[in-house]
Amino acid sequence: MASVIPASNSSMRSDRNTYVGKRFVHVKNPYLDSMDEDILYHLDLGTKTHNLPAMFGDVKFVCVGGSPNRMKAFALFMHKELGLEEAEEDIKDICAGTDRYCMYKTGPVLAISHGMGIPSISTMLHELIKLPRHARCCDVTIIRIGTSGGIGIAPGTVVITDIAVDSFFKPRFEQVILDNIVTRSTELDKELSEELFNCSKGIPNFPTLIGHTMCTYDFYEGQGRLDGALCSFSREKKLDYLKRAYKAGVRNIDMESTVFAAMCGLCGLKAKSTLIKPQTF
Amino acid sequence: MASVIPASNSSMRSDRNTYVGKRFVHVKNPYLDSMDEDILYHLDLGTKTHNLPAMFGDVKFVCVGGSPNRMKAFALFMHKELGLEEAEEDIKDICAGTDRYCMYKTGPVLAISHGMGIPSISTMLHELIKLPRHARCCDVTIIRIGTSGGIGIAPGTVVITDIAVDSFFKPRFEQVILDNIVTRSTELDKELSEELFNCSKGIPNFPTLIGHTMCTYDFYEGQGRLDGALCSFSREKKLDYLKRAYKAGVRNIDMESTVFAAMCGLCGLKAKSTLIKPQTF
Repeated sequence: MASVIPASNSSMRSDRNTYVGKRFVHVKNPYLDSMDEDILYHLDLGTKTHNLPAMFGDVKFVCVGGSPNRMKAFALFMHKELGLEEAEEDIKDICAGTDRYCMYKTGPVLAISHGMGIPSISTMLHELIKLPRHARCCDVTIIRIGTSGGIGIAPGTVVITDIAVDSFFKPRFEQVILDNIVTRSTELDKELSEELFNCSKGIPNFPTLIGHTMCTYDFYEGQGRLDGALCSFSREKKLDYLKRAYKAGVRNIDMESTVFAAMCGLCGLKAKSTLIKPQTF
Repeated sequence: MASVIPASNSSMRSDRNTYVGKRFVHVKNPYLDSMDEDILYHLDLGTKTHNLPAMFGDVKFVCVGGSPNRMKAFALFMHKELGLEEAEEDIKDICAGTDRYCMYKTGPVLAISHGMGIPSISTMLHELIKLPRHARCCDVTIIRIGTSGGIGIAPGTVVITDIAVDSFFKPRFEQVILDNIVTRSTELDKELSEELFNCSKGIPNFPTLIGHTMCTYDFYEGQGRLDGALCSFSREKKLDYLKRAYKAGVRNIDMESTVFAAMCGLCGLKAKSTLIKPQTF
């Protein structure tokens, strides 16, 4: 993974929403400029209580995943891989004041947990996406790493998502804004997908492919599982659904990819992708 | 709260889905009976690895809430209130093998965290609702306790939900099953609402009301917040929306109540209600 880390970038911040660099962060909220203080409630951070540029100014890679323990393990892994001098014990949960999410930083890599499902990751992303703006960093790449259910592929295969699709195999995310439904695109950055795929080629026994990821609103009825408290479909209906998903290009199922793609895309976090290691099906 | 705890019930289990008692648990999944083992993945429990009747057979109240720390604090509070002999240190996280949810038990009270949002709580509920069946317990009451945003009411007011409504003020939950949308009812148990409301009358300075709770799919754009990474509506539109919500009977907003009401209702957990203490708006 080290090969996807670019050389240190000396781009200067030019205004509150635009940075001189290859990649821009566009926080699309006209109210933020007039706010005296911005409190990132669920991250236990704020513009008045924390020196965000000092804490996060050098961040280049943001990696998000569901489980807090796994994100800590990932941060420790990256720390070792990057050969950083800081003691491992100093990599502490930055969001320890809240138990909603956990955040660890090692060098230019920020690792954050997002819990399970679209509402949980979207709440975190609203606050996380404002961080590069407050911390004055640029050229940020965001990658979601998680487990998922694979469809028609060998267990252990890594799927790099090109497009996130909904339960109807459509590349869209329907966001309810007040009482309006707005449809957003869920396409992910092609260049980064290819770059990650090329990285995988250099690692022995690391089966990897690029495909669509289907994002559902629950783990049981939405993903065709037969062992939940409620199950109203037959085994045949389930298999028919999964076959149709495969035919539509779906290679795995998660519960966060559509909103992740939609929000990162809208905010100009161009270099992003979802990297998922299927476990079941 | 002690007054809502019924006397010990000696009802006998009669078959796998029906119990001789006032309240029944209906797990609506024809596949479960033929399963050799049921693994509750996200709770780190299973029918072969754990003696579920011994662990949970005496459970009468299940209390769920978003935050793991708060659910631990609630379990310790209940332990004290119930005057149980067991040492406080013995109240340990039953789901410690996973970091998805936390679970604590004290006497007949089980406290479980569910994270943020509909997909997170629904995944937990699918596994939790099977527990009374496996543990052979009956007359179980389930209550969701959480923070929320209040609408037109004083901060600190407790709202006991009578009906959970969606972003369009409709008493429904739209569940995607494979690629079909099924609409489910979100009415909560009236008797328990009244019982809880009566309990509140006995507590000084405990402003409480019964009202509708609106359940949204996110914390920012869905709830009219002006400080997310994305905001496309005006302050006026936000206020108009909240006023219309109030007019429709909504007194607070959360992110879990519709699926909680729908799933508990379908599974015959008749005595259930949502009890929420609004913080903001």
